[in-house]
Amino acid sequence: MTQSRTVRATVEYDGAGFAGFQRQAAARTVQQELEAALASVVGHAVHVTGAGRTDAGTHATGQVVSTRVETRLDDATLRRAWNARLPEDLVTRGVTTVADGFHARRDAVERTYEYRIVQTPQRPVLDRGRAWHVREPLEVALMQDAAGEFIGTHDFRAFTIGPETRTRRDITNIAVWREGSMVAVRVSGNAFLHRMVRRMVAALVRVGRGDLTAGDVRRLLQSGDRASVGATAPAHGLTLVGVRYPSATNRANQSTVALEVSA
Amino acid sequence: MTQSRTVRATVEYDGAGFAGFQRQAAARTVQQELEAALASVVGHAVHVTGAGRTDAGTHATGQVVSTRVETRLDDATLRRAWNARLPEDLVTRGVTTVADGFHARRDAVERTYEYRIVQTPQRPVLDRGRAWHVREPLEVALMQDAAGEFIGTHDFRAFTIGPETRTRRDITNIAVWREGSMVAVRVSGNAFLHRMVRRMVAALVRVGRGDLTAGDVRRLLQSGDRASVGATAPAHGLTLVGVRYPSATNRANQSTVALEVSA
Repeated sequence: MTQSRTVRATVEYDGAGFAGFQRQAAARTVQQELEAALASVVGHAVHVTGAGRTDAGTHATGQVVSTRVETRLDDATLRRAWNARLPEDLVTRGVTTVADGFHARRDAVERTYEYRIVQTPQRPVLDRGRAWHVREPLEVALMQDAAGEFIGTHDFRAFTIGPETRTRRDITNIAVWREGSMVAVRVSGNAFLHRMVRRMVAALVRVGRGDLTAGDVRRLLQSGDRASVGATAPAHGLTLVGVRYPSATNRANQSTVALEVSA
Repeated sequence: MTQSRTVRATVEYDGAGFAGFQRQAAARTVQQELEAALASVVGHAVHVTGAGRTDAGTHATGQVVSTRVETRLDDATLRRAWNARLPEDLVTRGVTTVADGFHARRDAVERTYEYRIVQTPQRPVLDRGRAWHVREPLEVALMQDAAGEFIGTHDFRAFTIGPETRTRRDITNIAVWREGSMVAVRVSGNAFLHRMVRRMVAALVRVGRGDLTAGDVRRLLQSGDRASVGATAPAHGLTLVGVRYPSATNRANQSTVALEVSA
């Protein structure tokens, strides 16, 4: 008799071809591609849950999903069969059997996103699908200062456009750095509101241009005023790079590491 | 009266959409896209010369081209007008007026290429157009040792598939390193034969897998035997990252730097 079990997988995708992670009636999404491919491997309908509901255009190297399957295939064979049925812009890795109750979204305790900005006079070519092009010089030291304002627990209602009513979130870490002509922002938090990372990045870019100060960012947080935050940075600069779980829910055995952040 | 002058430009392109750099009768190439766009800016036919004749599929962040133009536009305005007429997979930067006799190919004294390998059990997604996927573990220390065999002046006839009869080339620098799941090879030399970098990389990957030794690489160089070198690494892992010129031919004034290696 084939036993039912819960598996988790780390998922990488190129957001360009997807209308986001979550299943929609009339658009191509990551969730339905994962479910269709896996169902054809295991021979029954599956429901795949993702840790982060990434927007249309947003990429992932470290999305985590969970699902129930009933199959005789071991984890490594399941991964290979699943990947063989997935399109070229989507792949799974690190497929492992976990405790029955594991749920990729509910059990996640921290998500990490990375946002890439290319700051050059002319448009980027090789990075055109992976980074936001900003022509004006950016003062990274000012962005680093202002980024510090986001650390800790705040009401982020000014930094979402969604209908959420519970808008307090805890930002555990944020880093801004320059690498050649690229400026990157990496932010970790317990959870993120709709468009929150992209609106934080847009505000930091205004700081880097000299249009806002760190104090202005603090006042935007305090005010809760969506209009004053203004723009949202484009989706294609954003990548979900990792999700963290408490070690007890994360694994069926002791060998699985708790932190999944891709290289 | 409009004066004729020579300009040089650094060019970035995504090789996926091009049948290589050099003009061909019935295929889309970098050279003809550059020429068509520039001709429409300056209002006369132009001939664009590139420092490196990259293959179909090979990328560039630091290709250098030169051309004669007759226009009243200054360098910065010329760059913006040229880029506005180029497709999204091709852009110029650092357009500068140089000494009349400057020739991007003949005057180049060193080219630098970078080759990217992704070494993971499952196929890459976000890097699928930019790196060669190798499933087997690679021993980077062995590759570094063997890479040293290429340094200096050698007859590289075993490492080309072209009809060239003069096959001695001088490799000035080669580095192999790992960054997460990526293994990169960066090589500089006075000039490269057709497919030479890709065949050097294929040999280094055989070394990394344990199928060849550094001594075997030395013997392949000495033997000149094309069949024994075997495979050529795929074009889409390769990027022309920079071209160096002697400072005297490089510039019309003292402010231009001689080394062009992109960030």
